[in-house]
Amino acid sequence: MPPPLRLQDLPPKSARFCLRVERFIRKDLGLDLKGKRLLVALSGGADSTALLYCLRYLAPRMCISLLAAHVDHGLRPESGQDAAYCRELCAAQNVPLYEAKLDVSGLAKQSGMGIEEAGRHARYDFFQKTLVGQNADLLLTAHHLNDLAEDALMRLIRGTGWPELAGMPAYDPQRNLLRPLLLTPGTNLREFLTNIGASWREDPSNTDPAFLRNRVRLDILPLFLRENPNFLESMARLWRIAELDRQFFLEFKTKLDISYDAGGKQFSVPLDALLALHPAIRLRIYKTLLDALASGQVLWKNLLRLDEAVLARRSGSRVQFPGGKQACLERSVLRFCAAS
Amino acid sequence: MPPPLRLQDLPPKSARFCLRVERFIRKDLGLDLKGKRLLVALSGGADSTALLYCLRYLAPRMCISLLAAHVDHGLRPESGQDAAYCRELCAAQNVPLYEAKLDVSGLAKQSGMGIEEAGRHARYDFFQKTLVGQNADLLLTAHHLNDLAEDALMRLIRGTGWPELAGMPAYDPQRNLLRPLLLTPGTNLREFLTNIGASWREDPSNTDPAFLRNRVRLDILPLFLRENPNFLESMARLWRIAELDRQFFLEFKTKLDISYDAGGKQFSVPLDALLALHPAIRLRIYKTLLDALASGQVLWKNLLRLDEAVLARRSGSRVQFPGGKQACLERSVLRFCAAS
Repeated sequence: MPPPLRLQDLPPKSARFCLRVERFIRKDLGLDLKGKRLLVALSGGADSTALLYCLRYLAPRMCISLLAAHVDHGLRPESGQDAAYCRELCAAQNVPLYEAKLDVSGLAKQSGMGIEEAGRHARYDFFQKTLVGQNADLLLTAHHLNDLAEDALMRLIRGTGWPELAGMPAYDPQRNLLRPLLLTPGTNLREFLTNIGASWREDPSNTDPAFLRNRVRLDILPLFLRENPNFLESMARLWRIAELDRQFFLEFKTKLDISYDAGGKQFSVPLDALLALHPAIRLRIYKTLLDALASGQVLWKNLLRLDEAVLARRSGSRVQFPGGKQACLERSVLRFCAAS
Repeated sequence: MPPPLRLQDLPPKSARFCLRVERFIRKDLGLDLKGKRLLVALSGGADSTALLYCLRYLAPRMCISLLAAHVDHGLRPESGQDAAYCRELCAAQNVPLYEAKLDVSGLAKQSGMGIEEAGRHARYDFFQKTLVGQNADLLLTAHHLNDLAEDALMRLIRGTGWPELAGMPAYDPQRNLLRPLLLTPGTNLREFLTNIGASWREDPSNTDPAFLRNRVRLDILPLFLRENPNFLESMARLWRIAELDRQFFLEFKTKLDISYDAGGKQFSVPLDALLALHPAIRLRIYKTLLDALASGQVLWKNLLRLDEAVLARRSGSRVQFPGGKQACLERSVLRFCAAS
């Protein structure tokens, strides 16, 4: 028997699962998606299949319309079957599907990137093109709580500061990206699919220990779960605390009189106003402005160096950041600029 | 040849080591210890021996006087030799030593605590008594950066929020406790001792996997160090960020009109003033007040529940916290009280 088509036909537990996702979007993220066109990134694996079903059940209540996009990376012999599965699923659910078949090995060789990185780049390129081409509002991915916990552990390893330490955001307006399942444990997604009688493609999960993510998933996260069986729940709570702090820190930025140049390639902030703030806030303002300027990871080490220069009012000093970004201290302003 | 007696007679590298510790106390922690009597917790192991030497070299510059306290737990056959070593060291360095010999096994049986916990309790009891009895100002312990990183990982496991997540404080005024080596890597302490020609007692480090701390030290921390050889440095940076945030959050508390009852067993905070603050700040105010009230770990889960009640102004509702503490919502104030 195929899965039910409507929310009201679901077993109560599965319906509640969907309603919790709706509440996360509406209450926790404060987003009203009414009238929006949402593009679901669909691999055919359990996570994205669960996301598609869940949104399909919520669509009438939330007044959203759905599209899906699938990328065949051409890396595994069964990738054609994954694509076929997505086609069937979308046809049955009446969701338009946009597909791309990529030669990721070729792209990796061409660009000099690793296979995983080249695949991610090409995939998100296609998603962004489809977003624009199909006039959709947001890209939705199926990242869940296990992904969040792994991401936070990787950030801890890499030396990320707070509040970024707690893991990826659920909503990234710069990339038009939404992750509605971010606080849902991965096991709940499979349970949901089983309960509604849906199938999915078993994704031979990547176990290559050459990737940090796989080492975190296979070696590190299990140790934390062994010590604290509620570790995933703890990480969800830590993420909520980080969200509160992020919003709070942002409020101080909006009160500053920041000048933006036409192309968004340069910001300047009055020094006196900066110096009136607590260093905890100044550091977050530097970080937010540098992140908005261009890609390139902003290291806290450099932010702390910049704040020393600001405190000492060392006019003429510059601090470089990855991605060709820099902060230049002038007489009365701090100027952030991207390499042109 | 015994270690030099004065800072100016040390090899330059070792002198710089001591001066960095002084700078950490003075600049990072903002403490002026001039004229203070400092009690060093001395086990005779490398860490506390390094702390004693380092402070001994700094004493004339910093105008501090030193005392030491050693506890013989009577748990290992060589514990008498550790005590003898401490006596010799303190005699040679001209530091008065206060000693206690405890029957930790007996205390553990009596109290029903584990050996490690009973030992820690008895040890700190003796340190606090010596602090008072000898009219000393602060207890100094030799916790270093490896201890800090282990502590932060344990806090992550247990689901601690921010800024406590980054690890133990370097200065705890409530306990008159100072940890001057907290940002110094453990290996630097042994290197310092070797460079000045000092010996120490090899402490058979506890490897019993029954304790979380040992599992973190032996299984978890090495994985993080393998992924990022500068992980300790990253954790020191994270701790600095947490310190900034802690100070910043505290500033909001000082602006509130909090009423304290005579015995410090009760605080009340005007609701309107609380509701005017950002939730990120409200949560930290609850936490600080509950921590000041009595011992008992404050869980973020409960803080979040309390904030829901405050936001909804649910007069009459109570939230319980470990250690018999509770928060009661009244019409115009939020009252925190400890069990009497």
